[in-house]
Amino acid sequence: MLTIKPVLSALVLAGVTQLVGAIEWQALPETAPAPADNPVTPAKVKLGQMLFFDPRLSATGTVSCNSCHNVMAGGEDNRPVAAGVHGQTGDRSAPTVWNAAFHATQFWDGRAASLEDQARGPVTNPIEMGMKSWSEVVARLEQVPEYPKLFEEAFGPGAKISEDNAVKAIAAYERTLITPNSPYDRYVKGDQSALTEQQVRGMQTFAAVGCDTCHSGPAFSGQTGQGVGVFRKFPMFDNPFFEGKYKFKQDLGRYNVTKKEEDKHFFKVPTLRNIALTAPYFHNGAVKTLDEAVRVMAKLQLNRDLTDQETADLVAFLQALTGEFPKQEMPRLPATPGKTFDYVK
Amino acid sequence: MLTIKPVLSALVLAGVTQLVGAIEWQALPETAPAPADNPVTPAKVKLGQMLFFDPRLSATGTVSCNSCHNVMAGGEDNRPVAAGVHGQTGDRSAPTVWNAAFHATQFWDGRAASLEDQARGPVTNPIEMGMKSWSEVVARLEQVPEYPKLFEEAFGPGAKISEDNAVKAIAAYERTLITPNSPYDRYVKGDQSALTEQQVRGMQTFAAVGCDTCHSGPAFSGQTGQGVGVFRKFPMFDNPFFEGKYKFKQDLGRYNVTKKEEDKHFFKVPTLRNIALTAPYFHNGAVKTLDEAVRVMAKLQLNRDLTDQETADLVAFLQALTGEFPKQEMPRLPATPGKTFDYVK
Repeated sequence: MLTIKPVLSALVLAGVTQLVGAIEWQALPETAPAPADNPVTPAKVKLGQMLFFDPRLSATGTVSCNSCHNVMAGGEDNRPVAAGVHGQTGDRSAPTVWNAAFHATQFWDGRAASLEDQARGPVTNPIEMGMKSWSEVVARLEQVPEYPKLFEEAFGPGAKISEDNAVKAIAAYERTLITPNSPYDRYVKGDQSALTEQQVRGMQTFAAVGCDTCHSGPAFSGQTGQGVGVFRKFPMFDNPFFEGKYKFKQDLGRYNVTKKEEDKHFFKVPTLRNIALTAPYFHNGAVKTLDEAVRVMAKLQLNRDLTDQETADLVAFLQALTGEFPKQEMPRLPATPGKTFDYVK
Repeated sequence: MLTIKPVLSALVLAGVTQLVGAIEWQALPETAPAPADNPVTPAKVKLGQMLFFDPRLSATGTVSCNSCHNVMAGGEDNRPVAAGVHGQTGDRSAPTVWNAAFHATQFWDGRAASLEDQARGPVTNPIEMGMKSWSEVVARLEQVPEYPKLFEEAFGPGAKISEDNAVKAIAAYERTLITPNSPYDRYVKGDQSALTEQQVRGMQTFAAVGCDTCHSGPAFSGQTGQGVGVFRKFPMFDNPFFEGKYKFKQDLGRYNVTKKEEDKHFFKVPTLRNIALTAPYFHNGAVKTLDEAVRVMAKLQLNRDLTDQETADLVAFLQALTGEFPKQEMPRLPATPGKTFDYVK
């Protein structure tokens, strides 16, 4: 502790961390890191918000990024698995877009290294947005009279509508989707009244039983900067009862990306920010309540049976991770006056 | 004219109408009429906006009112026919919600007498939002901790979550969806520079060929107040070429509601406000461009072959009916912390 304490004290003075139990607690930064080649600018955020809400990025004209990552709610769809074009459903639960800017990798299996790379995927996924190719997307956007101007405003004179610029704009918008000032954050910054007694007990239990082993850092995702993501095996401990009920092991996780035996059932550590708003839980959305999710995690990852009190305390603490959602003006989607696209029926 | 002129002059002085050609042109009012038992209040509008955007009003948790009546765009989905739960599609094109408050009846067949009655329909329509009943909707809303309070704020202490209150709130929100100050409105109010020469020619052609026979009043829908809607036969004149191409007569229109022989192929006169933003056109969304829609209307309703110039002028005039869309703050949907609903997959 002697070597760590001075650092922590400095951080406490800076108002971003506090020592409760033996671990470092970090408040959520109010701005997110951005790659050098895609700084966040108002023009890019404006364009990115439009694209995020534009259902014309889907084959049927019915699905936008916001359909599965609803920023009017917890940043996802509250469904077990996401639903795309033609009523099709995928295999995994849509992760929240709120605070996704703080993750080093994206998707449950970490197959995208950045928000930019993530945004490339769903648009051309046949069961999500169903576009044949990004060329098709670009061709559509080019027919919307205002979009060429908006891309130039975002990326400079002469800039074209392109896949790269579209995903950059979406990522820039997503980097503004941050929920600071949760009760937890206010507590960590020094407001002792921000958490209830039960929530403080839950915070101590969180550290005592080892949740923080994986769920560390300001987003409780173990991932704070750009780089290699943190993946953990799930389930860590076999449990026939829970497996029978929730079928977690049907998904091989990161193995599907790397094809390495040692990556089987490894998943990105998901954020716990706003976790109370993102039921149902886990990669397959199989667990309906936060209460059950906490028990399942303790058993499968820490081989621990929580008491009812511990569970309730942890749930209370997790509810303190619900932050403040910035007010947003609704975008106006630029029109194609007098015509529209030939959507797939 | 002698008996009409004094009235018109008074209206011109009031800044709401102008005489161009021989007909009365009316600007769009900035507020919409509301029924005596459902005055528009800020609390009701706030709740109504939430409900309008809340996908939990659908069986799958994926479809909200806004899915087909997108207020970020032209108030509909720019698709030929609407798409609901499980990728199902209906038979008719979603009408715009913008300025719907000025119609005396709702739906293409006028089967709802008010916005309140309209809002009852899609939620329990099996191919739209797919809820089994409004009781099921109310039971869901009751489980969202903030909704009971929001209904009380909107409808008074002790007010319950109910179908009637939900549709009243949605209707109150919809009564704020008005797009004033189009170039046409500014012209009618006296700004001679608001329309181009071509648009003024189109305005004169609109009256000269008789479009105003049906598309009259401030919303160009023939319907200005509460009461019996204006229905017109469509097509009025048989045309095998257009019928072969667009299959308009497959829909019996108002007959499906009344079962009266004389109502076959009668439809509500749709608004022309923001018509440039609501392609594709007609009750079945079969016509892709505004240009073609104008030719089809002239031929089928007025038995008239427009010249290319007349068509272009009319399209230019119709584009002048695109109004100003009020800025809206995005709603935050109240959460069900730590749990969610059992959506139909």
